[in-house]
Amino acid sequence: MRKVEVTFRPHDKVTRVPEGTTLFNAAHWIGLPIESTCGGRGTCGKCRVRVLAGEVEITPADRRWLSEEELAEGWRLACESVLAGDVECFVPALMRVPKAATMGLSRFVLLEPNVHKVHLVLDPPTLEDARSDVERIRAALEAEGYGVRIELPVLRHLPIVLRTAGFDVTAVLCGEHLVAVEPGDTTDVSYGVAVDVGTTTVVATLMDLTTGAAAGVASNLNAQAPFGADVISRIARTRMEETAAAELQRTVIGTINGLLEEVYAAAGVGPERTYEMVVAGNATMLHLLLGVDAHAISVAPFVPAFREPLDLPAAALGIRIHPEGRIQLLPSIGAYVGADIVAGIQATGLTREPELRLFVDVGTNGEIVLGNADRVLATASPAGPAFEGGHIRAGMRAADGAIEGVSLTEGEVRLQVIGDAEPRGICGSGLIDAVAQLRLAGLLDASGRLVAPEQVPDHPLADRLVELDGMRAFLLAPDVPLTQRDIRELQSAKGAISTGINALMEILGVTAADLHQVLLAGSFGTYINPASARVIGLVPPVPVDRIVAVGNAAGEGAKMALLSFREREMAFDLIRRVEYVELSGQEGFNEAFLQAVRFPELEEVT
Amino acid sequence: MRKVEVTFRPHDKVTRVPEGTTLFNAAHWIGLPIESTCGGRGTCGKCRVRVLAGEVEITPADRRWLSEEELAEGWRLACESVLAGDVECFVPALMRVPKAATMGLSRFVLLEPNVHKVHLVLDPPTLEDARSDVERIRAALEAEGYGVRIELPVLRHLPIVLRTAGFDVTAVLCGEHLVAVEPGDTTDVSYGVAVDVGTTTVVATLMDLTTGAAAGVASNLNAQAPFGADVISRIARTRMEETAAAELQRTVIGTINGLLEEVYAAAGVGPERTYEMVVAGNATMLHLLLGVDAHAISVAPFVPAFREPLDLPAAALGIRIHPEGRIQLLPSIGAYVGADIVAGIQATGLTREPELRLFVDVGTNGEIVLGNADRVLATASPAGPAFEGGHIRAGMRAADGAIEGVSLTEGEVRLQVIGDAEPRGICGSGLIDAVAQLRLAGLLDASGRLVAPEQVPDHPLADRLVELDGMRAFLLAPDVPLTQRDIRELQSAKGAISTGINALMEILGVTAADLHQVLLAGSFGTYINPASARVIGLVPPVPVDRIVAVGNAAGEGAKMALLSFREREMAFDLIRRVEYVELSGQEGFNEAFLQAVRFPELEEVT
Repeated sequence: MRKVEVTFRPHDKVTRVPEGTTLFNAAHWIGLPIESTCGGRGTCGKCRVRVLAGEVEITPADRRWLSEEELAEGWRLACESVLAGDVECFVPALMRVPKAATMGLSRFVLLEPNVHKVHLVLDPPTLEDARSDVERIRAALEAEGYGVRIELPVLRHLPIVLRTAGFDVTAVLCGEHLVAVEPGDTTDVSYGVAVDVGTTTVVATLMDLTTGAAAGVASNLNAQAPFGADVISRIARTRMEETAAAELQRTVIGTINGLLEEVYAAAGVGPERTYEMVVAGNATMLHLLLGVDAHAISVAPFVPAFREPLDLPAAALGIRIHPEGRIQLLPSIGAYVGADIVAGIQATGLTREPELRLFVDVGTNGEIVLGNADRVLATASPAGPAFEGGHIRAGMRAADGAIEGVSLTEGEVRLQVIGDAEPRGICGSGLIDAVAQLRLAGLLDASGRLVAPEQVPDHPLADRLVELDGMRAFLLAPDVPLTQRDIRELQSAKGAISTGINALMEILGVTAADLHQVLLAGSFGTYINPASARVIGLVPPVPVDRIVAVGNAAGEGAKMALLSFREREMAFDLIRRVEYVELSGQEGFNEAFLQAVRFPELEEVT
Repeated sequence: MRKVEVTFRPHDKVTRVPEGTTLFNAAHWIGLPIESTCGGRGTCGKCRVRVLAGEVEITPADRRWLSEEELAEGWRLACESVLAGDVECFVPALMRVPKAATMGLSRFVLLEPNVHKVHLVLDPPTLEDARSDVERIRAALEAEGYGVRIELPVLRHLPIVLRTAGFDVTAVLCGEHLVAVEPGDTTDVSYGVAVDVGTTTVVATLMDLTTGAAAGVASNLNAQAPFGADVISRIARTRMEETAAAELQRTVIGTINGLLEEVYAAAGVGPERTYEMVVAGNATMLHLLLGVDAHAISVAPFVPAFREPLDLPAAALGIRIHPEGRIQLLPSIGAYVGADIVAGIQATGLTREPELRLFVDVGTNGEIVLGNADRVLATASPAGPAFEGGHIRAGMRAADGAIEGVSLTEGEVRLQVIGDAEPRGICGSGLIDAVAQLRLAGLLDASGRLVAPEQVPDHPLADRLVELDGMRAFLLAPDVPLTQRDIRELQSAKGAISTGINALMEILGVTAADLHQVLLAGSFGTYINPASARVIGLVPPVPVDRIVAVGNAAGEGAKMALLSFREREMAFDLIRRVEYVELSGQEGFNEAFLQAVRFPELEEVT
C-alpha cells in the first residue's frame, strides 16, 4: 500500500498516511481538528479546505456545498477528500467554539467534559448567616446541581480566596472533586490532557475543554525503554532490582511531565488551568505508572492488580497538572487487553453499531476485539517482536532506510524506503509486504517454504533466491535479505494473531463474510498494506476496502473520554461488557496455532 | 425543625426525632441497636426492617438487597430509610451479644468500631478466574457486607501481600476505606486513638478496639502555647507571620505524635496496628491542626472554614498511626462551639434524654448547651482569662502553691493549696471559692464591692481588708491579695457565662427549677465548688446535688466515637440538631450582661 504525504497550510504540518485516508482524518490524527459539525459525514459542509497541490476528486457532496467557481479554485470538503496521492492544502478553519467534536473513527462527540467550572457570586457571611465557608460554597454548588467532595488542600486556602475575591469565585470540579476555587469568573479557561502511555511511545494532547479543540500535541519515546523493550522485560526488572519499580514509575512520569511542558509551551497554557488528565495504556504501563507491583501480570495465570478506572489526585503521582487536579485511568479488560484497547474500542464505536467488526492492534502483544452492539469478545496473542522488526535478520524499526513497502510485480523488485535513502533493513510493514509478494510471485509455498531457484529456473526473480549461512533467503536489496528463518518468525507472529481471531470468530460462530470491517489500530496498523495482511492471513479474507487503519485509536479514545463524560462512562462500562477470552485456557489451542502458521491458499485471498 | 414520631415493634418503643433522621439512627437513640455490620452504609443488607405504617421511599440500596416482593411488603434497609413522616416499623433483629463499655457520664456504649478487620481466605487466581486482585478482595468483602474504596498505597503492595500470604489475609477497613491488607488472621489486634486537642492541653487515649478498654493514656501541654495562650492570639500570629500557620500545624502534630509514642510504649503497641484516630477540639484547634486559615473565626461574623466531620488520611497530616490510617475529626457547631463540645454533648447523652440539662464548659471561652431529646441550643461566651487566673493580681494556673479552695467560716481563713506548699497565688477554682466565701461572710455586696473595714469593725476578718496601690483588697495570705479589680474581672467573666445561660433559658422559656442537672465540663469544671459557683451566680440556682462535674467530656466523647460508629453518627448529626445562638446578635445583650455581672442575692442561692 502506498503512503501519501499531506501538507497542511497555514499550520505547515506534514503527515504521511495510507492512500485512501480522508484529508479530514489525516488532519485530525495530527491534532488539526478541521471545523465540522456533522462528524465527517459530508452533511454540514463546514470542513472545506483548498487543495493547493495534488489531485483530489470532486464528489457529489462537494457539488452540493461548493460552487463551480470554488471547485475550480480547488475547494473541497475535507471529509470527502479521499487521498490518492501527495497533497498540499489550505485549512481555513479549525474547530472553534463547538459544543461537539469529531473524534476517533469519525465519531461525533458532544463536548461535555468531566471538568466543570461554575461561577458563583456568594452572599458574604453575616452574624445571622455564619455558615462555614464549606457549607456556603456547597450550598451554592448544590443549587446549581453539583454535589462535591472537598479536599484538604483546597480547604486550606478557601477562607482567604473567598475573602480576597469578595465571595465572587469560580469553583472547579473534576467530577465530584472540588479541585480549585479561583477568584472571579474563570469559566472561559479550562484545559485537560489526554495521554496514551505506550510501551514504546507516549503521546500527550492538551485539549481546550471550552471548545473541544486540541491546543497542543507532543509525543516522545517512553523513557522506560532502557529497562526493556517490552512489558515482560520491564516487569522482570522490577523483580531483579528492588528500586526498579520506583525508577520505572519516576521515569514514565518524567516522560509525561516533559510532554506536558511541551504542550503547555506550545499552547501558552499553564498547569494551573489544566485540571484533569485521562490516561490510556496497556495494563502493565498503568501498573508501572502507579508504582503498583506488576509481576503477577507476567506469569500464569496473568493477573493484574486492578482493572478498574482509578481516579487519583495528580499530586499522588507528581504529574504536573493543577496541583489538586485528577488523573483518570481508563479501565483494562484483562492483563493483556488494557486501557489502550478500551480507548480504541471506544474511539471506533465498535460496541455501539449493529455491524460486526474486528479490531486488531498488532504489536509484540496482539490485541483482538470482535463484536458489535450485541456482544463483544476480546483476547490477547503474544505475537512476539517480529512485527516490530525483532528477531528478523535485517529487521529494524520504521526509520530512515527501512523498507516499508515491497512490490514484486512484472519481474521487478520495487521498494518503498523511508526517507528516500538506500535500503538498510526492513520494518514490520515491509516484512508483511515482502512475504505477501513472495507468495503472489510463486516463490513461497503455503507452508512457508521458499522455493529453490532450481524449481523456478525461468522466474525473472530466481537469481534473488540465494543461500545464506546454510539457509535459503530472498535478496530484497544487496544488503537486505529475507531469510527462511525470518519467514518462520513472521509465520509464528501472524499465526498467534490469527489463532486469536479464529478463536473469537468460532465462539461467535461467524466467518469472514460476516465481518463488516477489519480495523487495524496503532501506528503499525496504519502502515500495513491491507492486501498483504490478507494474503499472509494476518486478517481474515475480507474485501480489501473493508480493512481500515484507525490510527492511534487509544489516544483518540482518551481524548474522547476527556471531552465527554458520557464517552468516559461508556468506556468504564466496557470492563463489564467485553468478554475476555483466555487463549491458553482454550482446548485445542496448540493445534489451532499450528494450523494458523500456514499461509492461506492464494485463491482464498486474492 | 419538624419532628416525626417513630414506633418500633415488637419492642413498642416510641421516639420523636428530627425529620431527615434515618430509622437506623432513631432506633439507636432509644437503645435499639438494629443488626448491622457495615456501619449504616447500605452495604451489608442486614438492617432490614418492615414498615407497617407511614411512607419510606425505596432507595437503590434497598433494590440491591431486597426482592420486589419484600419491597412490596414494606421491607427496607433501616440505615437507608430517611424519615419524612411518622412511621411504625417492625425490627426483626437487634445486635446480639454485643460487647460494650461504660463511657462518659455512665453511658453504656456498644463496641462497634468504625475499624473492621475481616479475615479472608481467598481462592487463588487461575486461568479460568483471572479477576484482578482488587476485584477478588472486593468481592470477598462484599460477600461479608463491606463496600470499600481502595487507596493507591494499599494497591501498590496488594499483589505481593496476597501472594506471600497465600491469599490468606486480613482486610482492615476504616469505614469505607481499605487501609491495609495484612498477611494471615490479625483480627485479634486492633487499636485506635481518641485525642482531645485543647488550647492548653492535648490528651491521647489508645483504645483496644477488640475489647473497648483503654490501653494507654497520655497528656501534655499543647506545644502551640508559646504562640499565644488562647485561640485569638494564636490566630493573630498566623496573620502576622507568613510561616506561623504551618508552624502551628507542625507544632500541634508534634505534640500529638509525642503522645502517641508515649501510649505506644506504655501499651507495647505499634503505629502499624493503630488504624484510626478520632479528634475532638475547638474549631480553631481543628483549623490549625489541618493548616486551614482560621482568621475568619476571630473577627465578626465569626465564620469557620468548615464545621463538617472531616475524614482524612493520616499521611496527609503526618500523624503517626498506620501510614494509611484515617483521622476522623468530630464536627463543630459554630466558630466557638467546637468539636470538643460536640464530643461533650455526646458523652453526656444530653440530646438523648427527656430531662432538660445545662452543659457548661468554663474557660477563656465559655461554651453553653441547654436542652434535651426534643431541642438543643448552644452558645458561646467570651469569658476572658479570669477563670484561668489571667488578669488576676495574684492569679496563677492550677500548680503547686496555688490556692484552689477557700473557707472563711468561723472567722478563720482556711486555704486549700495545691502541693501542700506555701500559698503563692490563686487559681480559678480558688478565686470562685474566695469570692463566694466573701459574699457569705458579708464582706462583699451584691454589686461586687468589698466593704470598707470601718463598715464591719467587729468582723473577725476585718483586719484582712487592706488598701493596696490605692485599691481595696482582701488578704487571703500574706502574699496573696484579692483586689477589688480582681473581683471585677471575675464578675465580668461569670457575667458573660451567665448571660449566655440566661439567653438560652429564655429562648426555651425555662427557669432554674426546670433544670434536671447542671453539667460542668473540663478540668476546671471538675475543681469548681458547686456551692460557690451557685453563690456567685456562675450557674443557675439549682440544688447543689444537681450540679455535676463531668470531667474531660470531650475526651470521653472522642473515645465513644472511636468505639462505636453509631455514637459517631449521632455526634455527626449534632451539627444539624443543635441550634447555635449568636449572643452578639441578640437584642438587649448589653443590658443582660450588665445585669449578669451582679451577684445574686444570698437568699436565692443558699
